[in-house]
Amino acid sequence: MQPINIGICGLGTVGYGSYEVLKRNQEEISRRLGKRLCVSHIAALALKEGQDVDDVTITSDAMSVARDPAVNIVLELIGGTEFAYDLVLEAISNGKHVVTANKALIATYGNEIFKAARENNVIVGYEAAVAGGIPIIKVVREGLAANKINWLAGIINGTGNYILTEMQSKSRPFADVLKEAQDLGYAEADPTYDVEGIDAAHKLTILSALAFGTPLHLEKAYTEGISQITPEDLKYASELGYRIKHLGISSISEKGIDLRVHPTLIAKQALLAKVDGVMNAILMHGDAVGSTLYYGAGAGAEPTASAVVADVIDLVRRMDCLQEEPEQIPALGFQSGSLRGTRILPIEEIICAYYLRILVQDKVGVIADITEILGDNEISIDAMIQKDPDKSGQDHNAISVIIMTHEIQESVMNKAITELEALDAVTAKITRIRVAELDE
Amino acid sequence: MQPINIGICGLGTVGYGSYEVLKRNQEEISRRLGKRLCVSHIAALALKEGQDVDDVTITSDAMSVARDPAVNIVLELIGGTEFAYDLVLEAISNGKHVVTANKALIATYGNEIFKAARENNVIVGYEAAVAGGIPIIKVVREGLAANKINWLAGIINGTGNYILTEMQSKSRPFADVLKEAQDLGYAEADPTYDVEGIDAAHKLTILSALAFGTPLHLEKAYTEGISQITPEDLKYASELGYRIKHLGISSISEKGIDLRVHPTLIAKQALLAKVDGVMNAILMHGDAVGSTLYYGAGAGAEPTASAVVADVIDLVRRMDCLQEEPEQIPALGFQSGSLRGTRILPIEEIICAYYLRILVQDKVGVIADITEILGDNEISIDAMIQKDPDKSGQDHNAISVIIMTHEIQESVMNKAITELEALDAVTAKITRIRVAELDE
Repeated sequence: MQPINIGICGLGTVGYGSYEVLKRNQEEISRRLGKRLCVSHIAALALKEGQDVDDVTITSDAMSVARDPAVNIVLELIGGTEFAYDLVLEAISNGKHVVTANKALIATYGNEIFKAARENNVIVGYEAAVAGGIPIIKVVREGLAANKINWLAGIINGTGNYILTEMQSKSRPFADVLKEAQDLGYAEADPTYDVEGIDAAHKLTILSALAFGTPLHLEKAYTEGISQITPEDLKYASELGYRIKHLGISSISEKGIDLRVHPTLIAKQALLAKVDGVMNAILMHGDAVGSTLYYGAGAGAEPTASAVVADVIDLVRRMDCLQEEPEQIPALGFQSGSLRGTRILPIEEIICAYYLRILVQDKVGVIADITEILGDNEISIDAMIQKDPDKSGQDHNAISVIIMTHEIQESVMNKAITELEALDAVTAKITRIRVAELDE
Repeated sequence: MQPINIGICGLGTVGYGSYEVLKRNQEEISRRLGKRLCVSHIAALALKEGQDVDDVTITSDAMSVARDPAVNIVLELIGGTEFAYDLVLEAISNGKHVVTANKALIATYGNEIFKAARENNVIVGYEAAVAGGIPIIKVVREGLAANKINWLAGIINGTGNYILTEMQSKSRPFADVLKEAQDLGYAEADPTYDVEGIDAAHKLTILSALAFGTPLHLEKAYTEGISQITPEDLKYASELGYRIKHLGISSISEKGIDLRVHPTLIAKQALLAKVDGVMNAILMHGDAVGSTLYYGAGAGAEPTASAVVADVIDLVRRMDCLQEEPEQIPALGFQSGSLRGTRILPIEEIICAYYLRILVQDKVGVIADITEILGDNEISIDAMIQKDPDKSGQDHNAISVIIMTHEIQESVMNKAITELEALDAVTAKITRIRVAELDE
């Protein structure tokens, strides 16, 4: 039997991991698939120390792989959105199926890429773009296909979760832990994508489109990172029964879809709150199934390769049926003609509960002033604690007032915060962290 | 466009739940599928109070649905293994695709049913047979298809988990909690299948075959229930850092496959240990992906319907390609010709750590006698605590000795227990509970 030829473009962590999984599990995969997969081509500038590939055509020209008539499937594992975009479109226009782990590419250019794939009758797999080895794309696109999805919330950036876990367990400041994560190789030299939530926004954009049947709307995602979180916030949240996790949240209501990435207080006893270190987990709620949770490694060579190779197996299973069923499994879970332009809510329109940390001069009447402003804005208080500030050079007359509110629209909270910050006794910018109640 | 006609056989909890989900989410499903699903036939002895079905042909003769030329897909939601078996084979031989939620049927007769389906070029979906709404069949068969699965462990019986959770949190004995669970409708009038582990063995048998590429071997599963667990065991386990959960465990090694359902001590801080009440969760470890966990409702009308209807959507997506790809997605995940007769280990050959609770007369030298027997059998002790017995009429001179051992083969442990029970000071049958260390 003719093997299916795979061309791997990019031989970094994920590229080489995919090569190794395809080689090591070749027999197991053939037992499942009834066909043989063969890595026939690799595009890489140079092999790295310790990389060993044999019987493979190696080239430095990835475009030549995308054009080679002998290649059936192109794995785009180069990253970035410029060359990768050209490469994927070139492969598609040459009638090749594509698998990519590139969340930035799919979140940014997915709508065009999927359209090109439909026009050329090829499949683009991107399971590896979200949550590494957790087969979450398959779960939402197929496993939960009977449901109207109501909402999803996930820890979808391992680096950010590692940093928050370390800050929590060791009471260390953000900058220290980030430095350590960089030294350990868990964070990039430029950590912006991870710690400012951009990477998570890419992934959330993809999950949200799949869940709610819309095109990809990266530009409408609200994105807030974890760099402003302090060990004090983690400690006070804990005293109040919460953990702070960096979540991607998307839900649908009559008003529209919210699509937001930000630090979030969640109840300590929730399973999601117990997902620590570099692990990922996604909680997804469907109208029939209720809440379900999916947990695993969100990054790393072999977990990501697990998803890349699963996509390869999946598309080999389907590729001979594309003439019969061009949208057998649509790229975004819904038939392309059925995607809807549901409104994505601006952050000002979301409704949630809030944690506020307010540094105030310890004077008579200040608490009354604060509660009056909240009351005037119809923001009701769920819990309040007062704390002496830490000793690190802050004003020694100041105290921290921590307030948990009930649910209120974000625009109202913004107005109240502006009014609170205008009080004489309020000596610093108020810390505001959103709270999520997630049924498990 | 012609709708796809579905015949629902059995209008109990799951049957009516499936009808409701298909009706309520008809539009959402059409947006995903590009086709319309229609419940055209229902076989039920009578409609129950509150059940409302319209525009459907209703019959009391399920076999007539399995033979009706107008029906494309038969949902077997009757349960049991006698009539259900005949019905499914009749539907298959009439060229109809089948979806079933019947774990007993698949675990017992799956090998024959899947063979008949291959010969008649139809699909048999059974996602709902394991872990309700959690799409675990799809995950292991497709999502993790790049991996060699090393092991899996799951809480796959909600009733048993509810009973253990209540016993743990309220220190109540098994019989009391069972009675309450029956009153609440969580447990059947005859609770044997749930509390003696038979239901879990059905599900584990299915997961194990899917994970390791073997035929179904229900007759080789080791099955032990929770009826012998006492509140004391839960308390002592907790003191030692463990929870007791009723797990199905299957793993593969050079010696063979272990396939066992029994109460199990697992570390308290594990995510699996935090899965409480009627919820299910499965931890699955693949060589590339590492550990992944899947959590959700394991039973109930709509969670189970979520899986039934997902199977319907799945097979409608694939059914026109069966001529091209008869084993596009093989029933047991591996091509039927690639299933292997890997040996299933008898329970005596498994290796694990143990919790022992030994009731002894409080005499000089008794601990020395116990440790000598363990030592002679080369069983090493990880931890030991001594406890006064509870006051409920036990011998007041007796104490409980709780021992955690390191790993040892079960046959050796059996021999040691026989020797321990022969000691004069040992006054009752020894409680032995297996321990599992599960990397998350």
